[in-house]
Amino acid sequence: MTQMQTRRSGGRAARRASRAAPVTDELRSIRPGMEGGRYGVLTQEQIETIHEAAIEALETIGLADAPPSGIEHMTRVGVKLGDDGRLRFPRAVVDAALQQAAKEITLCGRDPRHDLLLKGNRVHYGTAGAAVSMVDIDGQNYRDSTVQDLHDAARICDTLDNIHFVQRPMVARDIPDNREMDLNTVYACTSGTFKHVGTSFTEPDYVHSALELLHLIAGGEEAWRARPFVSNSNCFVVPPMKFATEACQVMENCINGGMPVLLLSAGMAGATTPSTIAGAVVQATAECLAGLVYVNAVKPGHPAIFGTWPFGLDLRTGAMTGGSGEQALLSSACAQMHHFYGLPGGAVGGITDAKLPDMQAGWEAMCSNVMAGLSGLNMVYEAAGMHASLLGFCHESLILSDDLIGHALRCVRGIEVTDETLALDQMRQVCLGGPGHYLGTDQTLARMQSDYQYPALGDRTSPKEWAEIGKPNLVAKAIARKEEILSRRAAARFDPEVDAKIRAAFNIHLPA
Amino acid sequence: MTQMQTRRSGGRAARRASRAAPVTDELRSIRPGMEGGRYGVLTQEQIETIHEAAIEALETIGLADAPPSGIEHMTRVGVKLGDDGRLRFPRAVVDAALQQAAKEITLCGRDPRHDLLLKGNRVHYGTAGAAVSMVDIDGQNYRDSTVQDLHDAARICDTLDNIHFVQRPMVARDIPDNREMDLNTVYACTSGTFKHVGTSFTEPDYVHSALELLHLIAGGEEAWRARPFVSNSNCFVVPPMKFATEACQVMENCINGGMPVLLLSAGMAGATTPSTIAGAVVQATAECLAGLVYVNAVKPGHPAIFGTWPFGLDLRTGAMTGGSGEQALLSSACAQMHHFYGLPGGAVGGITDAKLPDMQAGWEAMCSNVMAGLSGLNMVYEAAGMHASLLGFCHESLILSDDLIGHALRCVRGIEVTDETLALDQMRQVCLGGPGHYLGTDQTLARMQSDYQYPALGDRTSPKEWAEIGKPNLVAKAIARKEEILSRRAAARFDPEVDAKIRAAFNIHLPA
Repeated sequence: MTQMQTRRSGGRAARRASRAAPVTDELRSIRPGMEGGRYGVLTQEQIETIHEAAIEALETIGLADAPPSGIEHMTRVGVKLGDDGRLRFPRAVVDAALQQAAKEITLCGRDPRHDLLLKGNRVHYGTAGAAVSMVDIDGQNYRDSTVQDLHDAARICDTLDNIHFVQRPMVARDIPDNREMDLNTVYACTSGTFKHVGTSFTEPDYVHSALELLHLIAGGEEAWRARPFVSNSNCFVVPPMKFATEACQVMENCINGGMPVLLLSAGMAGATTPSTIAGAVVQATAECLAGLVYVNAVKPGHPAIFGTWPFGLDLRTGAMTGGSGEQALLSSACAQMHHFYGLPGGAVGGITDAKLPDMQAGWEAMCSNVMAGLSGLNMVYEAAGMHASLLGFCHESLILSDDLIGHALRCVRGIEVTDETLALDQMRQVCLGGPGHYLGTDQTLARMQSDYQYPALGDRTSPKEWAEIGKPNLVAKAIARKEEILSRRAAARFDPEVDAKIRAAFNIHLPA
Repeated sequence: MTQMQTRRSGGRAARRASRAAPVTDELRSIRPGMEGGRYGVLTQEQIETIHEAAIEALETIGLADAPPSGIEHMTRVGVKLGDDGRLRFPRAVVDAALQQAAKEITLCGRDPRHDLLLKGNRVHYGTAGAAVSMVDIDGQNYRDSTVQDLHDAARICDTLDNIHFVQRPMVARDIPDNREMDLNTVYACTSGTFKHVGTSFTEPDYVHSALELLHLIAGGEEAWRARPFVSNSNCFVVPPMKFATEACQVMENCINGGMPVLLLSAGMAGATTPSTIAGAVVQATAECLAGLVYVNAVKPGHPAIFGTWPFGLDLRTGAMTGGSGEQALLSSACAQMHHFYGLPGGAVGGITDAKLPDMQAGWEAMCSNVMAGLSGLNMVYEAAGMHASLLGFCHESLILSDDLIGHALRCVRGIEVTDETLALDQMRQVCLGGPGHYLGTDQTLARMQSDYQYPALGDRTSPKEWAEIGKPNLVAKAIARKEEILSRRAAARFDPEVDAKIRAAFNIHLPA
């Protein structure tokens, strides 16, 4: 079990040469949209039981607090308004919405190369959240997050292969006006990355301004509507079982503006959902089904991501925890519900309760990320950089998560079993009169890039080599990588003419 | 998505009181032997294809280098000795061994409370390996491992709920004589823990001495044979497809001495097995099936763990890597092969390539540990403390892994779906005229210990609390915990009279 003795021979030189060649996308061992689904925490019977319970909750409990416009939309398709002001959803109405709903969604990037196709078990990882702090890694401090931090996060994401989308992970707390904050959030994210961006809007009215901005970026409304590269992360419910009145109005405006919607139900097990994992999933499912009815009443087939995001709670203290095993189970079960409905869906993974990128951060982020991926979750939100149970975002952790998620994606990819990979012929050649080992064989060399995933910053040196190169520190490597990325001009910055138009129309806080 | 605002009310006081009560074993949310198996990386068809390939390898390639005694045992049951000196295994002979083989194995602890029942999808985590270095965490150095380090590791394991067995994780390099090293390894481990111990023997003859020692510890041969608390981790093959002649003789002596055997095939994908995951699993399976025929030829039904331990290799350098996604897949696939045969089995998880307990260590160790558990692997070896691709062992990392494995075990436990956990009644009460939240309800409080797993050292404080308590460092907490454990007298030390007898018969290096 000690380090393999390798022959210093032609095989090694060949490997070196092969390694030096750039890896084309087709040859990479992992990519966005790999198919998960080999892990299913729930049995089919359990899935159906949860579905039935969700339907019963919708029929008998229903949801309160829909805005008048929502009541109008939903009652029109058969939802019942009770004397208690709650909307109750007959099974047939839910079934009709499930029929109408978009079963495949393309989330566009500003660059089509980054388009994400959400369907089946295709897995994508990205950022998300509303952290209020940045983790200042040098000082080991938590400080208010700024619009520059947000832009930098987008720029970093743009360079990381395994971060597939950039949902706004933190709040620009240096912009006190909510409208300006929302618009600058759009600007900071979209000018930092060519990848798909997700964001929220505080008030319904802001959506119109945001659409103006997006039309400018896209080069007109038609171009925007053809390829909407920003989606609305919408907390349309206040669990348990109440619509978030204003967020619903935001949602209607986004739908009308051609913006895909993430129907986000963010309950907390033991506080705003039942404490049991099954109960939390039932409630999140019921709430998202209500949202699905709503969206399809407004506009049948409008792209809406089924966003069951139940979170864990530390029942001892009542504080949120996102890094637990229970969290990984919650999101894994949700992925199965999405598949049951045949709907593109998302949930959370990758959150840690740790304050810094330490060993705990590693194990917590990996557990939920890999389980979500193996469950075939289409969108793994909050997958990178999220510390302190979502309160803090860390650029260095984001960078390290590119390795972590690459590792998870390699697992999602799974195992190919073919005559070639079974390798009986090779085994025969090697064992019967052959060299007695597989080093440097053509078959081994051919697999070096296509089958194996290599970490960018993760360390694989021997202890001896490690000491010789000065015992590199993982976090220090991430800091250096961050500085290198941020020292370059962001590739995604807008064309100067477009940028000038934007700056003439909006108060953009980032320097030009 | 920010920290939950909790009401400072009676509910909190009740939670506090409930938390103060000690948690009995029945109420713990996790325990050894939880049932995994909801993750299956291979389809049933792929499993059968791998089985067929393994059978073909055994029939057509076979294994070289069996000792004369082994040839005698195996040819007696129908294995064919070829002119090329290789033993080839007809399908019927393999089938007969599969029939005879032990389908359930109890690995005894010195204390029956720690007995492990290996069958089905029951999952256990523990240490293993042959690290040659200790990670000196203070100095960030790798230094030679000693018998005291080994004893301390066993003592630490004895206190950790989620380390279920103690296979010798490192080599006592301060004992140059191999016989003395082997015997002192047995002594250092068994005097440090009441849990089941696994170890290796360098030469066949040493087994007799070890059995003498074990009889003394047990209180006689009969007592030893009734409850063998040490098993033999046996590298009976030198992959590809060669018996390890001496190790086979060790194995025969262990079988005759009543010691359970781990049939350990430790190939490296791309070096001593094909580079493909499927090929590596085929070869490991073939080798372990050969071992199974061997064991059951010597003594039908003798407890033998199916130890397919294929390792990953970094094909760019030819160096071993144990922390990759490929490694997690290898072990997960092996678990399915064990279930296919209905045999108790083990493989590796939890290894990291990182040199220190950093974020990389966390994500690498979690990935393979949780996937192995979800696959229902009976014995997850090397699950804790193993750094630098198995070259270094770290006590602090071992301690932190208790949290990491607890987290993985919570995931293995999965989700209970019952009328009670679906919680529709609760949802109804809370939403329809109730408080509108689930905090402090009887149902929530009742689940606090039984459903939720809490970290011992993992941090869940808010950034504010964290700053107030001095920004505790995870590794520093592990160091303090280690010092606290090692400051106490080991509970597992032998009765002084027994110890005196042992010391009279053997040169024991540890101080009395």
